[in-house]
Amino acid sequence: MTDSTVLVPLALAVDLGGTKVEAALVTDAGVVLPATRFRSPTGPGRTSEELQAAVDEVVTSALAALPADGLLVGVGVGSAGPVDEQHGLVSPLNMPVWRGYPLRDRVAAHVSADVPVTLRMDGLAITLAEHWVGAAQGHDHVMGMIVSTGVGGGLILHGRTVSGPTGNAGHVGHVECGGFDDPCACGGTGCLEAVASGPKTVAWAQRQGFTGTTGEELAAAYAAGDEVAVAAVKRSGRALGQAIAAATSLVDLEVVAIGGGFSHVSPDLFEYARQAVAERVEFGFVTKVRIVPTGLSQDGPLIGAAALVHRADVLR
Amino acid sequence: MTDSTVLVPLALAVDLGGTKVEAALVTDAGVVLPATRFRSPTGPGRTSEELQAAVDEVVTSALAALPADGLLVGVGVGSAGPVDEQHGLVSPLNMPVWRGYPLRDRVAAHVSADVPVTLRMDGLAITLAEHWVGAAQGHDHVMGMIVSTGVGGGLILHGRTVSGPTGNAGHVGHVECGGFDDPCACGGTGCLEAVASGPKTVAWAQRQGFTGTTGEELAAAYAAGDEVAVAAVKRSGRALGQAIAAATSLVDLEVVAIGGGFSHVSPDLFEYARQAVAERVEFGFVTKVRIVPTGLSQDGPLIGAAALVHRADVLR
Repeated sequence: MTDSTVLVPLALAVDLGGTKVEAALVTDAGVVLPATRFRSPTGPGRTSEELQAAVDEVVTSALAALPADGLLVGVGVGSAGPVDEQHGLVSPLNMPVWRGYPLRDRVAAHVSADVPVTLRMDGLAITLAEHWVGAAQGHDHVMGMIVSTGVGGGLILHGRTVSGPTGNAGHVGHVECGGFDDPCACGGTGCLEAVASGPKTVAWAQRQGFTGTTGEELAAAYAAGDEVAVAAVKRSGRALGQAIAAATSLVDLEVVAIGGGFSHVSPDLFEYARQAVAERVEFGFVTKVRIVPTGLSQDGPLIGAAALVHRADVLR
Repeated sequence: MTDSTVLVPLALAVDLGGTKVEAALVTDAGVVLPATRFRSPTGPGRTSEELQAAVDEVVTSALAALPADGLLVGVGVGSAGPVDEQHGLVSPLNMPVWRGYPLRDRVAAHVSADVPVTLRMDGLAITLAEHWVGAAQGHDHVMGMIVSTGVGGGLILHGRTVSGPTGNAGHVGHVECGGFDDPCACGGTGCLEAVASGPKTVAWAQRQGFTGTTGEELAAAYAAGDEVAVAAVKRSGRALGQAIAAATSLVDLEVVAIGGGFSHVSPDLFEYARQAVAERVEFGFVTKVRIVPTGLSQDGPLIGAAALVHRADVLR
């Protein structure tokens, strides 16, 4: 029917990351409405009040953009971790002024009390997005990964999200890699993030003589066949594969979807990861895992935050 | 009521391991009936027919011991992995003559068609047992581990078992340990099993000059303060802790229950593991994980196989 009283169900999606916070309205088909999308910078140099003002600004702007035929059915918040899912608190590593900050309730204050507000780690949100409308559609055993400034992720097992008791499941950046002893900011040794994040890969290359300073420069050097750049990308790709093999040994994954800025350094990054997985010759259940690029790139975090509303049946 | 027609529900529990196969009848309170318990040797030197005969023998004996007031309500089979859960096939690494062997159906042939037969990895069965009547009671996010000839395990997350699409989730022995480059039989590098199994720990000690050949001798040398034995147990304990920290980063565990022969080498093994976890100072959700001995020791595998029947509601 075309009754004009039929409203379009929309989720307010909020993504709090290490460099920016974004908000937008997202349809139940996983489409971000461009005119409702707003962003504001975050980062370690901001005070708590500035961070909250940034959140308030994007949330208010997105809500003000609610179309006349739109109905706000829920709010989904994806946040850099760690989080305290039960209490809706966030403690993003990259925003030291926020430790146990009540982000969920501060966002909820912008909407009426009957609108549900759900907060999860950003890695889980991205995984939900890939499962919903991205590269992991049709699979019940999925790990989403972001390889960027850090390395994060999320898990869907047996068709349902895995949060754990605190909401911090999916920290694949802190799975260790055999034979690597790079010290990690978390206190661990040889953690994937300490080896294979963009900045860590560039830093390793610099120690071998690379004179660039960014992932983009490393990508260009790799494409030009620079020996150190090739070694650096290979090293990080292998570490990725080792961590994926370990994760698959533990939770028996079907598909791993990898996105994030540094995942684009070269398509060969994926090949090196696949090669490391393929070395687990005795375990067909490990070597079967497919490693693919994410399907949603820049929209993944917001679509995933919206999935916390529109795909609430997949949550646990 | 005391009506003599009320029958006691019993599960036939079968545990296929690298050195023996056992079967017994188990009550819905998790009690193994001693007079119904039978075992027969397995191992890499046996032909397929000999292995099948060993299974037939213990299953037939246990079924023949069904008491007059007992009702067989189901059969649970725990097997050394890998397995193919969907098709009920087993490929135990330590029994190379069995690859894709239809163990579930061969056991099912001993009971009437209306008795359900459920097969899972032994590590999952042990985890179920600890969750049911052992050291992990009351927890919804649990990893069970066996540290013995190999290192195996299983997962319960959000109160339900995790099998994965093939049934091989829980292979924690093939999670890698940062800074360790021990080659693993699976093809990986620095896998926990390659470092911290009983035989691998003894072999490492031997390379440092230890003259004993068994875990028991290593335990005695450790208790006597032998420097190499201390270093060997510490090394393996740290690797255990590193793999547990990695697993907790990935799936946010509350409690890890560790059993198996080599877990008894010294209580200090657990301390070294806890120390390695405690180094993840930045992540409270990792350092919160409790590492405890299993509560069930020798009975765990059979109780866990029975849990596949009596606790079918926890399975997925």
